Amino acid sequence: MNKSEIKNQKSTIVVKLGGTEGVDFSAICRDAAELLAGGTRLVFVHGGSAEATALGKAVGHPPRFVTSPSGFTSRYTDRRTLEIFAMAVNGKINTLLVEQLHALGVNAFGLSGLDGGLLRAKRKAAIRVVENGKKKILRDDYTGKIEAVNAALLATLLDAGTVPVVAPLAVSEQGEALNVDADRAAAEIAAALKAKALLLLTAVPGLMRNFPDETTLIREVPAAQREAALAFAQGRMKKKILGAQEALAGGVGRVVVADGRVEKPITAALQGQGTVIR
Amino acid sequence: MNKSEIKNQKSTIVVKLGGTEGVDFSAICRDAAELLAGGTRLVFVHGGSAEATALGKAVGHPPRFVTSPSGFTSRYTDRRTLEIFAMAVNGKINTLLVEQLHALGVNAFGLSGLDGGLLRAKRKAAIRVVENGKKKILRDDYTGKIEAVNAALLATLLDAGTVPVVAPLAVSEQGEALNVDADRAAAEIAAALKAKALLLLTAVPGLMRNFPDETTLIREVPAAQREAALAFAQGRMKKKILGAQEALAGGVGRVVVADGRVEKPITAALQGQGTVIR
Repeated sequence: MNKSEIKNQKSTIVVKLGGTEGVDFSAICRDAAELLAGGTRLVFVHGGSAEATALGKAVGHPPRFVTSPSGFTSRYTDRRTLEIFAMAVNGKINTLLVEQLHALGVNAFGLSGLDGGLLRAKRKAAIRVVENGKKKILRDDYTGKIEAVNAALLATLLDAGTVPVVAPLAVSEQGEALNVDADRAAAEIAAALKAKALLLLTAVPGLMRNFPDETTLIREVPAAQREAALAFAQGRMKKKILGAQEALAGGVGRVVVADGRVEKPITAALQGQGTVIR
Repeated sequence: MNKSEIKNQKSTIVVKLGGTEGVDFSAICRDAAELLAGGTRLVFVHGGSAEATALGKAVGHPPRFVTSPSGFTSRYTDRRTLEIFAMAVNGKINTLLVEQLHALGVNAFGLSGLDGGLLRAKRKAAIRVVENGKKKILRDDYTGKIEAVNAALLATLLDAGTVPVVAPLAVSEQGEALNVDADRAAAEIAAALKAKALLLLTAVPGLMRNFPDETTLIREVPAAQREAALAFAQGRMKKKILGAQEALAGGVGRVVVADGRVEKPITAALQGQGTVIR
């Protein structure tokens, strides 16, 4: 193990910033700037579904959301949707997030999973979906499942004193750009870096036993109860819990699903506010 | 001088891919893949004005082009235009260019000048323009003039075996994202790397004595005739000639303004087809 890997294990925190409305990017960036000054190594991964949806509507190509037989919802990504997704997520969200960090004196480095082959994925060209109770197959989809993370590249960027800010696109074996799930991307990145923690910041306080009743927040999910936790998860929360499982299996210290709408979202999550999964 | 700097001087070629219609990105990428296999180190810089204009129109915020008192044309970049520019140029053009290179087996690395502070620029918040023969001042502009290039960052990416693909955005002293001229950005990058050559690939065969009469192509501009050459330059060609002067003053071997619509645009330009400026 080289010096860089030891540093990664000691202090790297991977933060996923949810793309849904309400998550306070500004508060997250301010919190990050303070933590970085204290020596923490941070990697940001962001979503951008709300922006991609808004842009798709503005240019006359609104999104089509589909549900898999196992209940996972995703954006059907034809070629035009992929371009809209790249514009909204890699072009706007990523650039403006990097800008916000620079304004706070943080040397941010925006990239997507295509860049330098950061995220290599297997394309799911045909996807099985359920619509109106009927199963069907959709083709020409540009989504993928991440198979490899170029951790050395992230270590190089971290060692250069920058904060990598990753947009959820990946590259297929054929070199195609693919839309990948940002929660799963963050989980794979955290696992590849053997991060101390993965924080999934979102517009709810964490996993709830009875969604959306926030008084039923689950504070902790021990290893033995992870499968049970999946049963409580609704909608996109399913992918977070699945991502948490992948991250923990990959050697990440802990995963916290936490509120991205509070004053110091990263610090609060590190202090255990939210749902802590070990 | 370290090993990396020596390598840069020996063989780095900076290629600017024009954003106007007609420039054949696909031919440029294929040519690049062959040259890379032969050991050439390449850095791509691209524009994207046509895409930014199209997106601006699609989302109901068409561009406004302004002319400076000295005759240079640029895009007036209010905040909304900056976001559109980032989406079109950093989001779409950059991502799809990186994708095209990956499909050819080239490990491309897309970034903008914000990333890692690659391009630091001075913001021109108020710009002097001439409209209908009258001078006026436009405020809230997000354009800038590049003042520093992080050459070490590009050397790191080149040493890692990737091909940097740079979108023309820069970061201001205050951390703001700025739209910068892609020709000038390519020139500054070439100068910072002490590149062997800077190739400005565009939709014309080079600088013409009587634009647009292609039979009046100027084959070579020796040092003593650079000022005279500027007088022949029309419209955006002015910035290319200005960029060429900056690059040569910065130690670049030669600059070629060449045709980006031919079969092997990089190879042809390296062989001297176009306007060679020394």
